[in-house]
Amino acid sequence: MQGVVFVNGACVAADQARVSPFDRGYLFGDGAYEVTPVVGGRLMDAGRMLARLDNSLKALGIAWPMPQDAFLQMHEELIRRNDLDEGIVYVQISRGVAERDFPFPAGEVKPVVFAFTKPLAVVEHPLARQGIAVKLVEELRWKRRDIKSIALLAQVLSRQQAAQAGAAEGWMVEDGLITEGCSSSAFMVKDGVIITSPLEMNGKPRILPGIRRAILLELAEREGIAVELRPFSPDELLTADEAFQSAATFGLLPVVEVDGQRIGNGVPGPVALRLRELFFERLRENAQGVGMP
Amino acid sequence: MQGVVFVNGACVAADQARVSPFDRGYLFGDGAYEVTPVVGGRLMDAGRMLARLDNSLKALGIAWPMPQDAFLQMHEELIRRNDLDEGIVYVQISRGVAERDFPFPAGEVKPVVFAFTKPLAVVEHPLARQGIAVKLVEELRWKRRDIKSIALLAQVLSRQQAAQAGAAEGWMVEDGLITEGCSSSAFMVKDGVIITSPLEMNGKPRILPGIRRAILLELAEREGIAVELRPFSPDELLTADEAFQSAATFGLLPVVEVDGQRIGNGVPGPVALRLRELFFERLRENAQGVGMP
Repeated sequence: MQGVVFVNGACVAADQARVSPFDRGYLFGDGAYEVTPVVGGRLMDAGRMLARLDNSLKALGIAWPMPQDAFLQMHEELIRRNDLDEGIVYVQISRGVAERDFPFPAGEVKPVVFAFTKPLAVVEHPLARQGIAVKLVEELRWKRRDIKSIALLAQVLSRQQAAQAGAAEGWMVEDGLITEGCSSSAFMVKDGVIITSPLEMNGKPRILPGIRRAILLELAEREGIAVELRPFSPDELLTADEAFQSAATFGLLPVVEVDGQRIGNGVPGPVALRLRELFFERLRENAQGVGMP
Repeated sequence: MQGVVFVNGACVAADQARVSPFDRGYLFGDGAYEVTPVVGGRLMDAGRMLARLDNSLKALGIAWPMPQDAFLQMHEELIRRNDLDEGIVYVQISRGVAERDFPFPAGEVKPVVFAFTKPLAVVEHPLARQGIAVKLVEELRWKRRDIKSIALLAQVLSRQQAAQAGAAEGWMVEDGLITEGCSSSAFMVKDGVIITSPLEMNGKPRILPGIRRAILLELAEREGIAVELRPFSPDELLTADEAFQSAATFGLLPVVEVDGQRIGNGVPGPVALRLRELFFERLRENAQGVGMP
């Protein structure tokens, strides 16, 4: 917790930031969040972030507490004041402060915005070259995985379980099929085809609509790499040629080990590495204001 | 938000209470809570509250931030300072303040305790005589329903859906069977037998171990009323003789309407009324320090 954060309408020192414990974010996990990469001091794919946050807020019945352009300006002010070259901006919007009761408060309640920055090696992530180990964990989450909510206790417990096993991420398994990572999207590659879960199954949300997931799938299509949107099982994963995951904080990371077993040759595979290259090529171009949207 | 609340180790005016937005309770819903009834200025069934909170904290890997007797004294100090005769004490313990990352923080992090009181007519609840309407809603929650966690967004959305339909509570339906209420335990009565979900099914937690639920089942046994611990369907519920729900804030409330259809005669039934009588008899005796534990 360093530098300046944004809370309750103002920038303050991180260790001085305070909210009311009657904030419904604190009492109920009643809010939504986003994480946006920053490269070269520029916010990446902010339009997609706004669109997804808008979906989350609509699903929760929370109104935007400020115009979206002011919301972006707030992001940019944080980047500037913290002199952030590379890393992420985290932002959450909770329903606001009210007497504790489960239904939405009757009166007018102002949503609370909280945002901070964090320096991170997004482009040259320390684990990108060697790849990471993943542990398979039980899918514990609620059914509304389309909402990027701050009620994240399932992910906390599962990530902790993965960390205790020495794994960098947990991939969640439901009814014998992998959904996604605790805080990432999950992919495998077999015979040159990328396989990843669809967003919905049987008309129900199954995974979070990952922004980096969507960009990678667009890049794969452009590159002529085939994609199958279907869930895969742990057994199929263990026989994959490659695996990888995506998230805002690292773009793409190759997965070289699952539950202690090597994937492919146990080193990052060519499809993952090529996609990672394309991903950061696009990001660098966008950081210079010339790339594909 | 009136009176005095307890936060960060001290009693402060409710509208002055503050926590850090880096509290994992705020970022992840990473904490547990309890609600304890107060009757005649006395905390009711505090031992059961401590035992359940201990289970939740163990499941979350959060250490008690203070000895349990000091924790009870804090409850009693709040009751005294707010001059609370009847109502509830709410308390939550979050994992504490740390740099945002999903797994448990590595260093020593002090859990944050937040507690407040609320005056309520627990014994003479305004809806006890007429009974309440319930709406059936989709079960959205995560799988660890044995943990009384503050990640309550599923319950918030479902209670809001019930409120919009004019119902006082939502009863959640999973795979064609009712689990429980959003913030209550659910019961039906048929041919003199009380039917309610077991805590677990197939070795997995199914509902929260409700303290008022447990007490009511003990009272029923003592009274010679038969109990079947099995789930029931919406169809079975609609043909029930009676229905009711239990929670800390009201003990027992008869349910007289489900999704706009009358249950039984559309008035509180004899089993519900008798159990309610026994429940508050026991509470009054305990408030005088003479009742069954």
